Amino acid sequence: MTRVTRTVDAGTDGSRERHRAVLETAARLICEKGYEAASVQDIAAACGLTKAGLYYYIRSKEDLLLEIQNYGMDIFEERVLLPVLAIADPVERLKECMERNIHLVTEERSKEVTVILHEHETLTGAARQQINARKKRYVHFLEASFEEAMREGRIRRVEPLVAAFSFLGMVLWIYKWYRAGGRIPADRLAAEMQDLFFGGLEIPRAPARRPRRPRRPKVPAKRARPGAAS
Amino acid sequence: MTRVTRTVDAGTDGSRERHRAVLETAARLICEKGYEAASVQDIAAACGLTKAGLYYYIRSKEDLLLEIQNYGMDIFEERVLLPVLAIADPVERLKECMERNIHLVTEERSKEVTVILHEHETLTGAARQQINARKKRYVHFLEASFEEAMREGRIRRVEPLVAAFSFLGMVLWIYKWYRAGGRIPADRLAAEMQDLFFGGLEIPRAPARRPRRPRRPKVPAKRARPGAAS
Repeated sequence: MTRVTRTVDAGTDGSRERHRAVLETAARLICEKGYEAASVQDIAAACGLTKAGLYYYIRSKEDLLLEIQNYGMDIFEERVLLPVLAIADPVERLKECMERNIHLVTEERSKEVTVILHEHETLTGAARQQINARKKRYVHFLEASFEEAMREGRIRRVEPLVAAFSFLGMVLWIYKWYRAGGRIPADRLAAEMQDLFFGGLEIPRAPARRPRRPRRPKVPAKRARPGAAS
Repeated sequence: MTRVTRTVDAGTDGSRERHRAVLETAARLICEKGYEAASVQDIAAACGLTKAGLYYYIRSKEDLLLEIQNYGMDIFEERVLLPVLAIADPVERLKECMERNIHLVTEERSKEVTVILHEHETLTGAARQQINARKKRYVHFLEASFEEAMREGRIRRVEPLVAAFSFLGMVLWIYKWYRAGGRIPADRLAAEMQDLFFGGLEIPRAPARRPRRPRRPKVPAKRARPGAAS
């Protein structure tokens, strides 16, 4: 009976929150010790649960890893991808996406989940395919946005795949070096990276396009009669 | 006696080559299985050695990891950092450095060594400090080059630390997605990334600066007398 009640509970806010806390704590421990070295016992202890208590939330250690990665993708889609899909201008869409992704990877709470998503490839078979398919959707979204921006004359010609992974590299490498509370606040980091990446990439909207230099006259200018062209 | 002979041998080319092959094979296995999961027995077998034979080359598993990371830094310094130090122009220096680093991370042979260098933080204590100090030298070199480029008016204003880690993120993320022999050759990848990163960052040297648009005349143009300005 208790078991049934708790299963039903799994849908309530409090229970979902506890489940998330388990995933975040496990993610932190896996980041610290490595996936292989972090035992189910360690993870349970870090969550303040018995091993049996932890198995209420998870089926196996690999299942836990899959859950953490799916949770990471859920957070990412909710906070980064979905809010920008409706932005009509492709460059504005990409800039907003970069800003949101930077905020996500600099936040202490979601940091470890991001690390596991990109660093621990211990998943196998169908679980691995599932996560890779979700990651690929993001890459395709970026590629398509760069292609659209080129078609609309908003950026100069680039290889969309290289642009997409350059964008991702800049943004996702942040977890390797950035420390929250340091010299560079996350807002400034986002502004600097947007500026660095798009500043030169973007073709100014309309009138600022550099005028062509006039063709060199066949007759040297100094020999031409003054006012001859007017 | 044999032992002494072999220790002396360690200085010869053949022996150094065998030692490197052990480090590269171990790196590949650690990348595949993870550091914790790859046992000394596994690594020995992959190298075609007995466990005792492997211990001829290494003192412990952690020592092996340190050796792999130092080997990775040796390769990096030899092929990327040292050849560019003498380039006088800071932008040319950074571009050449990017190109060389991209070639390093796309080469099959050095790939796993790079991955371990940036992904496995299992080293502790003095070993960890040693590797981190070597990595920091690269970051400082990049920062200093960006600062120099700003001072010389070669690039627009950026936060050197953000520029350095954006550069690194773009370049080092490559090992996560790039497959040699695919649609994009390494040369083209390097050219695209240089163009993407520096294309807009760089202020054109001298004459190509965009001419200022003439100020709007106070009197609207259509009311001005034709030829009044000539």
